[in-house]
Amino acid sequence: MFIETCIAPVNIALIKYWGKRDEELILPINDSLSVTLSTDEMCAKTTAAAASSFKRHIMWLNGEEVPFEQNPRAMRCLKEIQQLALAKEQLKFPIEWKLHIVSRNNFPTAAGLASSAAGYACLVYALAHLYGVQKEELTAIARQGSGSACRSLYGGFVRWHMGKSNDGTDSIALPVAPCEHWQDLHVLILVVNDARKKTSSTKGMQLAVETSDLIKYRAQYCVPQRTAAIVDAIKKHDFAKLAEITMRDSNQFHAIALDTYPPCVYMNDVSHAIVEFVHAFNKAVGEVKLAYTFDAGPNACLYLLERDVSIVLAAIKNSFPNDAEQSVEYVKGIPIACDIGENNGFNGNATLPINNKNLFKYIIHTRIGKGPQRLGKSESLLDSSNGLPLNN
Amino acid sequence: MFIETCIAPVNIALIKYWGKRDEELILPINDSLSVTLSTDEMCAKTTAAAASSFKRHIMWLNGEEVPFEQNPRAMRCLKEIQQLALAKEQLKFPIEWKLHIVSRNNFPTAAGLASSAAGYACLVYALAHLYGVQKEELTAIARQGSGSACRSLYGGFVRWHMGKSNDGTDSIALPVAPCEHWQDLHVLILVVNDARKKTSSTKGMQLAVETSDLIKYRAQYCVPQRTAAIVDAIKKHDFAKLAEITMRDSNQFHAIALDTYPPCVYMNDVSHAIVEFVHAFNKAVGEVKLAYTFDAGPNACLYLLERDVSIVLAAIKNSFPNDAEQSVEYVKGIPIACDIGENNGFNGNATLPINNKNLFKYIIHTRIGKGPQRLGKSESLLDSSNGLPLNN
Repeated sequence: MFIETCIAPVNIALIKYWGKRDEELILPINDSLSVTLSTDEMCAKTTAAAASSFKRHIMWLNGEEVPFEQNPRAMRCLKEIQQLALAKEQLKFPIEWKLHIVSRNNFPTAAGLASSAAGYACLVYALAHLYGVQKEELTAIARQGSGSACRSLYGGFVRWHMGKSNDGTDSIALPVAPCEHWQDLHVLILVVNDARKKTSSTKGMQLAVETSDLIKYRAQYCVPQRTAAIVDAIKKHDFAKLAEITMRDSNQFHAIALDTYPPCVYMNDVSHAIVEFVHAFNKAVGEVKLAYTFDAGPNACLYLLERDVSIVLAAIKNSFPNDAEQSVEYVKGIPIACDIGENNGFNGNATLPINNKNLFKYIIHTRIGKGPQRLGKSESLLDSSNGLPLNN
Repeated sequence: MFIETCIAPVNIALIKYWGKRDEELILPINDSLSVTLSTDEMCAKTTAAAASSFKRHIMWLNGEEVPFEQNPRAMRCLKEIQQLALAKEQLKFPIEWKLHIVSRNNFPTAAGLASSAAGYACLVYALAHLYGVQKEELTAIARQGSGSACRSLYGGFVRWHMGKSNDGTDSIALPVAPCEHWQDLHVLILVVNDARKKTSSTKGMQLAVETSDLIKYRAQYCVPQRTAAIVDAIKKHDFAKLAEITMRDSNQFHAIALDTYPPCVYMNDVSHAIVEFVHAFNKAVGEVKLAYTFDAGPNACLYLLERDVSIVLAAIKNSFPNDAEQSVEYVKGIPIACDIGENNGFNGNATLPINNKNLFKYIIHTRIGKGPQRLGKSESLLDSSNGLPLNN
């Protein structure tokens, strides 16, 4: 039995991917750019095993068996990896051998984070190691699993180039800067209480391309300018510029969703209260220290520098009072050195809006991080004696 | 003492006005098109009087004295009317005479309806009668009080042509079709409970012109196409087409507001629940019978045909339960012949979302209506014996 275990990170876009020019190959209508988050707080973990005794491909996701052979996107990723292996003529085991794959996300689905991006990146990365093709270009393969998965194959700042060719071979992700370039870039994810059913991203972007008059203008004119400007801001460590472009692009993505017919609404009143808070906070400190971005859901992802984490958390506590805030579980992830109950020298709280209580479920504190990693055998999710998932 | 009393209607745009190319003259960046609502349910009423004994211009609005001579927009309207009168050389009284003006809206400010449009239309119409220039082109004058006021000077469907000249003389409203053309076009205004402070329209559109990348594309490409298409739908009594264009344009206006930096958010979760309801209702009946539009606030204005009012109200009652619904005051305006508690033959309620209770304050039922009207002396808001407001 051949076994590989890997982890892959979540990524959060600063310049949003919204709209495909090819539904099957998952080719986007514009470039996008993301920050890879540290796998210490959030990651997908996948063990892939091949054995002559396996009767069919089986996948267990978060403890439950899920269709794999019937999942065209997953099968496409596998086929592409197998083709790379065949082309290299260095097969460790017969190509016909079936696979058992166990995958888990170590973050709650409730976080509304793009778990499919980390998941497909991890699947492709694990399969690439299993078939011995880990040094090949893998992002175009991960892209065919879930578009933004291609960006989770690198750490730091990553740009997904939309490409021009119809076969998608040039629609690949490339690193803009590694995480070491901007080590103190931290992230707070505000997980919002929400019940409304939302249109899926796949359906939402399809409808947007079909019905929004504004989306073409965004893709052709706005995004190229923004992408160039944010790459420049990253190179120069210009946080204020990075923050402004990030916020504008988040707003524009949601504007496009609203210009869709029927409209897609992903942010709710709490999301908008966070937006208002961030602008009020930046005004109070007289400087852009905090940026928001929202994906296809109500949860906020805030970017900030490490040195500002404590005053921002104190201001959040003031503006968004929460009965759970004394609980160790309310702020998850990287521990905060100081008591978030203190103002930490920030005296602008009086100028910030006070919201109703308990609008957030919890907060995750994390940071920019590395790309996927290969783990040792002791980390396997699969019992090598029987090829079944371990109960760990 | 010379006295004139007039009423003027509210108008609700189907194609939205958002963005000025000249802040002072109030010249818009695109055409807009509205429906004038019946003055039976909502109107502004204004009495304007001139007398040699008046020491200064005084205005009372909704029972309170408000600055008039210090209000540049109001003074500009007065000056323009006076210039028309001087040009005609038919003055009934010396141009130096001061005015007393009493104005009231018969609808609550809480309705969040554009009271300034009806108010300025009424002011200009009353002044025009006072100075004997009522037959002149008045819309370009009302426009300088409040942009959309120019559309309240006609009944039925009204188009405000943006014009091209820098002096604004061609930025005027013209009727598209009188209210008799589509007598059974009815309106339900859903007044939503809301607390959030919103950016004013004036400020919001100024920020949008300054910061939105998408607004120019909307003004130059989307609006001209939509306006032509909706004029065509009006001529043909094509309700489904009118409804779709209206909904798309409302959504696009709010998309532009969101693409503004910092973003302007006028709709709230309840507004979006209404949007969802309208699309679900149309799907359930298999036909577009209902359209929403939202101005710079959370309240919905629904367009529908008279024959559908009862099933729509029954469906609203089902989807938006309200403790006040038994009260006669919950549905104001045109009485509904049938009990809104009944389903009235509509059996699609099961497919509609059920929302939390008491999301609306009340509902106003009204219809398409006529332009401003001159009233008799018995309707005066001013005591002709002392020139002061009557307490009626």
